[in-house]
Amino acid sequence: MNEQNPLLQLREIMQQNNVSAVIIPGTDPHGSEYITEYWQEMNYISGFTGEAGTVVITTEAAALWTDSRYFLQAPPQIEPRGITLMREGESDTPTIANWLASVLEKDSIVSVNPQLFSVSAFISLQDMLTSNGLELVTDGDFVEEVWAERPPLPNNPVFQMPRTIDGRTPGEKLKMVRAEMEKAGIEAWLATSLDDIAWLCNLRGSDIAYNPVFMAYALIERDRAALFIDGSKVSDITAASIGRQGIAIKDYNNIRVAIASVGTRIGMDFNKANYQLYLAAQANGGAKHITSPVTLMKGIKNNVELTGIRKAMIRDGVAMVKFLRWLELQMQASEITELDVVKRLHDFRAEQDCFVGESFATIAAYGPHAAIVHYEPTAETNIPLQPKGYLLLDSGGQYLDGTTDITRTIPLGPVTGEQRMNYTLVFKGMVNLANAKFPYGTRGAQLDVLARQFLWQHSKNYGHGTGHGIGHFLNVHEGPHSIRMQENPVILEPGMVMSDEPGYYQADNHGIRIENIVAVAGGREKNSNKFLHFDTLTLCPIDLKTLIRQYITPEEVEWINAYHQMVYRRLAPMLDRDHQKWLQRKCAKYD
Amino acid sequence: MNEQNPLLQLREIMQQNNVSAVIIPGTDPHGSEYITEYWQEMNYISGFTGEAGTVVITTEAAALWTDSRYFLQAPPQIEPRGITLMREGESDTPTIANWLASVLEKDSIVSVNPQLFSVSAFISLQDMLTSNGLELVTDGDFVEEVWAERPPLPNNPVFQMPRTIDGRTPGEKLKMVRAEMEKAGIEAWLATSLDDIAWLCNLRGSDIAYNPVFMAYALIERDRAALFIDGSKVSDITAASIGRQGIAIKDYNNIRVAIASVGTRIGMDFNKANYQLYLAAQANGGAKHITSPVTLMKGIKNNVELTGIRKAMIRDGVAMVKFLRWLELQMQASEITELDVVKRLHDFRAEQDCFVGESFATIAAYGPHAAIVHYEPTAETNIPLQPKGYLLLDSGGQYLDGTTDITRTIPLGPVTGEQRMNYTLVFKGMVNLANAKFPYGTRGAQLDVLARQFLWQHSKNYGHGTGHGIGHFLNVHEGPHSIRMQENPVILEPGMVMSDEPGYYQADNHGIRIENIVAVAGGREKNSNKFLHFDTLTLCPIDLKTLIRQYITPEEVEWINAYHQMVYRRLAPMLDRDHQKWLQRKCAKYD
Repeated sequence: MNEQNPLLQLREIMQQNNVSAVIIPGTDPHGSEYITEYWQEMNYISGFTGEAGTVVITTEAAALWTDSRYFLQAPPQIEPRGITLMREGESDTPTIANWLASVLEKDSIVSVNPQLFSVSAFISLQDMLTSNGLELVTDGDFVEEVWAERPPLPNNPVFQMPRTIDGRTPGEKLKMVRAEMEKAGIEAWLATSLDDIAWLCNLRGSDIAYNPVFMAYALIERDRAALFIDGSKVSDITAASIGRQGIAIKDYNNIRVAIASVGTRIGMDFNKANYQLYLAAQANGGAKHITSPVTLMKGIKNNVELTGIRKAMIRDGVAMVKFLRWLELQMQASEITELDVVKRLHDFRAEQDCFVGESFATIAAYGPHAAIVHYEPTAETNIPLQPKGYLLLDSGGQYLDGTTDITRTIPLGPVTGEQRMNYTLVFKGMVNLANAKFPYGTRGAQLDVLARQFLWQHSKNYGHGTGHGIGHFLNVHEGPHSIRMQENPVILEPGMVMSDEPGYYQADNHGIRIENIVAVAGGREKNSNKFLHFDTLTLCPIDLKTLIRQYITPEEVEWINAYHQMVYRRLAPMLDRDHQKWLQRKCAKYD
Repeated sequence: MNEQNPLLQLREIMQQNNVSAVIIPGTDPHGSEYITEYWQEMNYISGFTGEAGTVVITTEAAALWTDSRYFLQAPPQIEPRGITLMREGESDTPTIANWLASVLEKDSIVSVNPQLFSVSAFISLQDMLTSNGLELVTDGDFVEEVWAERPPLPNNPVFQMPRTIDGRTPGEKLKMVRAEMEKAGIEAWLATSLDDIAWLCNLRGSDIAYNPVFMAYALIERDRAALFIDGSKVSDITAASIGRQGIAIKDYNNIRVAIASVGTRIGMDFNKANYQLYLAAQANGGAKHITSPVTLMKGIKNNVELTGIRKAMIRDGVAMVKFLRWLELQMQASEITELDVVKRLHDFRAEQDCFVGESFATIAAYGPHAAIVHYEPTAETNIPLQPKGYLLLDSGGQYLDGTTDITRTIPLGPVTGEQRMNYTLVFKGMVNLANAKFPYGTRGAQLDVLARQFLWQHSKNYGHGTGHGIGHFLNVHEGPHSIRMQENPVILEPGMVMSDEPGYYQADNHGIRIENIVAVAGGREKNSNKFLHFDTLTLCPIDLKTLIRQYITPEEVEWINAYHQMVYRRLAPMLDRDHQKWLQRKCAKYD
């Protein structure tokens, strides 16, 4: 066996199976954004350590498709294995199907693991391969045969969310789900997204980094419901408690058998459920596409959840204030690196009650590093902070009662006029979106321009979304709502929590992003005469030193002063006198 | 025969044909917004004089579906005939299919004229009726048998647009269409929308009020093309000229025969082409849905068209200035009514070169009338203007080189504080949209909030779109682009011309709307690093007297001063000294 290059052995197995190519995407059977080590097949085969990509191996050639974040990182990792980088989003990059058609003979067989493709993704791949004269088969997991020391599937224990933190029992949630099932005309629904399942059962786990979820499926029928999970993860007390709510515990590996035993068509989200489960349903009562009814329920936080999030925001704000003061003092005392920032910020959060861990890998990006979207410092890239320019710090915590996500761009000393200008434009965008009022029925894409308009006036823009949904002690990225340029038909409803995070990035020079978390507020009546607004939940001062005063309007001054007053009022009681004084200075009236 | 109530005779014919209900929509075989008298079947049968509605007649009952614009107007017109009003958009209003199911016995037969339903509308109606246990048949035009003195189809002559005004020959346009047909994989395309056909052939007509179009179809094949039109409308010279461009003239009534003679599948827009033509194609080579390739081409004006529109805007601005000055003087001299306004404005436009007629019925709405959307004064509603409150004046002209559409809200004397506030909010919205900069790829729905945001901050909104496309000496409403709350996937491209017209309406009190026409500008490169903006085309001062100064930002002051400078610079050379002086005063610097 060749541990250095698993492609050799993979190709042997492909040959034995008469397969000309395999496609291995960087996902898991649940379509997760972050994936557990067991499912990092794409990384294992390619050597690539990025989080998004698909590797395609033929008997002769190999290529990895990934996005612009990784165009610099990927080649040195994959080229030693003879894998070529395919730059997604560039006009001359072929699709996987077209590339396969160009390197394979007609009627060649392409194999995939059907667990790693959603129903829609599989069908669309099949269409494209077929129209290119290739055949797609589902021969299973070839990587399993190659990967000698494959890590096991995690079996970390799950734990129940207390009623006081969640506000609705699994039994109540099941009732809501069944009402939606009836509307959709289905008698059984298969939940496959890990955060949907965690929310539905009021359980949390730690199978996946940063996301407090656990590997499981849930099958809800009209008169029974089951959670499919490795039984060793569930204590007897938890199993009994869940059982009383009408949810039986069954083995994770029995999901296909269970699907086969349902007599009727099973509803599942074809954009998320994997193709293997679809095949199991089709072989029996059939499958029907429905959007997960849990996604919208989960997206609209109730008052108990909102209260929890507000408490988590206070703790997170305290940690941020302690960190920011430490940074200010430390910059005058000794050298700090990006990795020191990551570590100290972690330590301040870890001091807080209910802290579980980070909600994603901290982005501490100094100077030009901040222009690299999703930069995470490593031992190789780590640089010391200098008393000039900006530090972009994007981080978040998982607390038992809420998930946080905050970005501040911190001037460490003098900045250039251009940097100030960009900081000012980004700041104005963040504030004007936070300040929006809009009628019930408004979609995120309608509001996105409020955050971009000032950059646009200067022919500048940013390539990421303006706002993503965020979970309640769950995934830091959560649907169904968003605020971005792309259309998303989901309307913004009271109780939805999301980020407000415009940015601007100038390659090799600087990057700026300011992010607060906001909740849609304004009464729960559902008619277009009802106007909604955002309540800002994040509690942490925003640096005003590098704003260009003349561009700040009276409305913006009013917003920032009201915000800083709220930050001080809520955080000061949790701080000692030194930190109170520091915070008071940072929250001083802007005029 | 009963001229008072044609329903009696209609029901006799229904009985003879064993039909339990007929559905008669207010449209024509081309899906036109404005329809020629011949096709006003819905109006003839119901007695309703509004422009939008569908009347449904059963052997026992009758009902008219129309929208909120007509909720007051319709009942006295239709109730004498035993027709009930069905208020579209209200939650307890049944759909036509549900209502029919409630009043008819199961398996009853419902008949429609298939010429008056688009393919999609017919199929969706059929689905709904079938699932309600009713049968839909296409027995033809029963109204024809009832309508003794039906006006004939118009046979007004058509005329050619000079090359200097249009910029592209029909031959060049055919080439563009055939390139799109090839991309869509079709060898024949049927054009059914009257403005598409007029644009394609560089012909104009006068078959329909306000829209310079003519009743016709066009069938484009790879090696031949034909215009189906009443031959008496086309002079020999025009026919020969069009013939040289590769377009044969054929009889309007032969379109179905021609469709039957095409050997291959015919592309047609299922949302616009009528169901009778679809049936003709299906009976032969088949039909395939494609969006009309002409719609986007027509929406993106070339420089010759833009130059023409700019010239028309000067003439229209001169007419508006003369009218506004006349109004100001007249208000001090004698009584004027809304209808006087309509007449005088027409006269000032009619003095202008190249004027053909109004581009829609002038809305001259004084005081509370302005809160009635699409109010047109009639002898019954006409009221005198008083020296207080606002006159809302929305009007437009058809000129040989362009179409105009302008709204000004004119204070005739003192206005209330609330009215001033609303005028200020609408003004700010209009200016901020006009001032937008946005990257290539932006859709109208993303920009809409720029016009609404100030009203939204005060929990106010308006129910209509912010911007509609506008034709080049063609329909005043033209796709495919728009600026509105609803998603429209069409991106805004350089050369697109549209309105910028926020408004606010307070029932029984006042209505405000300010409308300019703008063109997307900023270079024709198609990538998202390219920023676009709007050039304002409309040339007419905007009243600033009733703005609340403290809410007007420096950017808005800059915009209005630059706009008024441009208005003065372009119009003054066309005016005598008295009008110049008046205009100079109206365009004086705002500070």
